[in-house]
Amino acid sequence: MIVVVGSVGLDDVETKLGKRTRTLGGACTYFSAAASLYDQVAMVAVVGKDFPSEHIDYLSSKGVDLRGLQIADGKTFFWAGRYSENMDEALTLDTQLNVFANFQPNVPDDLRNAEYLFLANIDPSLQIHVLEQMKNPRVTALDSMNFWITSTRENLTRAMSMVDIVFLNETETRLYSGIDNLCAGARAILTLGPRAVVIKRGQYGSMLLTAAEPDLPFFVPAYPTEKVVDPTGAGDTFAAGFMGYIAQTGDLSIKSLRQAVVHGTVVASFTVEDFSIDRLRQLSSEEVDERYDTMRLLTHFDPPQEDQARIFEQPFL
Amino acid sequence: MIVVVGSVGLDDVETKLGKRTRTLGGACTYFSAAASLYDQVAMVAVVGKDFPSEHIDYLSSKGVDLRGLQIADGKTFFWAGRYSENMDEALTLDTQLNVFANFQPNVPDDLRNAEYLFLANIDPSLQIHVLEQMKNPRVTALDSMNFWITSTRENLTRAMSMVDIVFLNETETRLYSGIDNLCAGARAILTLGPRAVVIKRGQYGSMLLTAAEPDLPFFVPAYPTEKVVDPTGAGDTFAAGFMGYIAQTGDLSIKSLRQAVVHGTVVASFTVEDFSIDRLRQLSSEEVDERYDTMRLLTHFDPPQEDQARIFEQPFL
Repeated sequence: MIVVVGSVGLDDVETKLGKRTRTLGGACTYFSAAASLYDQVAMVAVVGKDFPSEHIDYLSSKGVDLRGLQIADGKTFFWAGRYSENMDEALTLDTQLNVFANFQPNVPDDLRNAEYLFLANIDPSLQIHVLEQMKNPRVTALDSMNFWITSTRENLTRAMSMVDIVFLNETETRLYSGIDNLCAGARAILTLGPRAVVIKRGQYGSMLLTAAEPDLPFFVPAYPTEKVVDPTGAGDTFAAGFMGYIAQTGDLSIKSLRQAVVHGTVVASFTVEDFSIDRLRQLSSEEVDERYDTMRLLTHFDPPQEDQARIFEQPFL
Repeated sequence: MIVVVGSVGLDDVETKLGKRTRTLGGACTYFSAAASLYDQVAMVAVVGKDFPSEHIDYLSSKGVDLRGLQIADGKTFFWAGRYSENMDEALTLDTQLNVFANFQPNVPDDLRNAEYLFLANIDPSLQIHVLEQMKNPRVTALDSMNFWITSTRENLTRAMSMVDIVFLNETETRLYSGIDNLCAGARAILTLGPRAVVIKRGQYGSMLLTAAEPDLPFFVPAYPTEKVVDPTGAGDTFAAGFMGYIAQTGDLSIKSLRQAVVHGTVVASFTVEDFSIDRLRQLSSEEVDERYDTMRLLTHFDPPQEDQARIFEQPFL
């Protein structure tokens, strides 16, 4: 069981390939939709009374435990954004916190024994509040963002020191650590206490660094999908593939973490191929496994495995 | 034997870690210093009468064939640049073409039978002129830059159509192809005729795409050296490690090309650890092989090789 705490919202999203209004969004939503491919997920979040029941029905159909989903008086969190031509950057056009402004994450009693916890990007003081509620989680992880690094650095530092795995993107890592070199920046974060740092690099993939082998980073490219429709949720579903794989296998070896990064990479690559969670609605484990196998073909060089020999022994000329 | 055609120059270079004046530079120089670790190299280039004899002596000591090095009346090509704080960008402060302005690359007769040819970044019309001189090279490759893409696109297109391998960086690929997606951009270049495209992505590593398997790109991260003193020559020595490995092994399989990309990655990582070619002066094949082995540990995930099991089976927590 993976407990995920974070935002559930309604988004207006515009990219060069189209526009959607009041589409299902929020880090917690994306994470749940993706991680439910791997293991049971329980959501701790808040929505307003306006939240469409069809979304509740969808999450239920995926087996997502919704006992921790509060339905509060008021409107659901709303975000509107437009992506740049190359899909690298989102310009926020509007943010209305609504019921999310007073979100107090309370983990239902039964869920406090969950083995896996993912704290999506929310106020670090709330992340700490959740960590204090959990009884004896096996693996805890958090994500954050620039806003918390600059506005509430001390709380974020404390939250990072309490979890096993920190997810950040490249810019956030540099901002937090003040170090330009990515490995050195990741090592600085490891000194706070987490046992692993996963750095997301957008179209350039990601990097994993563990405290067990701090001189041996692991690099993975992004899966080269050529159909990027909407990048929203890529980071959240990357974390979902990662945490989902760890929870499914229960294997906490470095090898397993590397494979988890590849699963995150693959799941994120599907997410961006349609608006909102639409691609995830149709996604099967078989499709994930197929891209996972392809990832090996995209990255390994020496020696090739038996079944790759035919491809690799071909002359290029 | 690898014939390399390109610039030999004297550079004033300033980075956050120091400054050097009239230090040995030029793409042809960097390439020769690095590729000579792998195979015999012959240089086709021009310098002025002011070119210090110690540099000639150094190149000779590396076994570089200098019969194609013209010593012309006038001064040697000069470049002055300063790198940004994060070493990502070079600001050109001064360029004096001097004798390089009238460079007519003439490949000495004996060298026209060479099996391997690397055309460093020079005017595409000169690259074509050299290609027309060669008798029956086994593998030809060229590098280029933004300037030629915008100023003499037709000649560059023709040159690319005549070689087996095109080296470009990410920005150049997008500029030439007009396509944002890197794989799609690389495929567009393959349609011109080359059998492989190698795209350099700076700190993000590189990508290889072959015409034999155009849906199967290969991605490699940069070697994560934390000692970047001077990035000058990284791209040229990347190509040198690549071409050197191909020439040394004579293996033109896709596997070999992938391994060549890793060799290029490793050699470039050493180059940037000191000014000019200073790190290359001391570089041994054993050091290259050591980093090559480490590259496997940085990128492979499934399944680990026997000798990696100890590292990979460790728990991260």
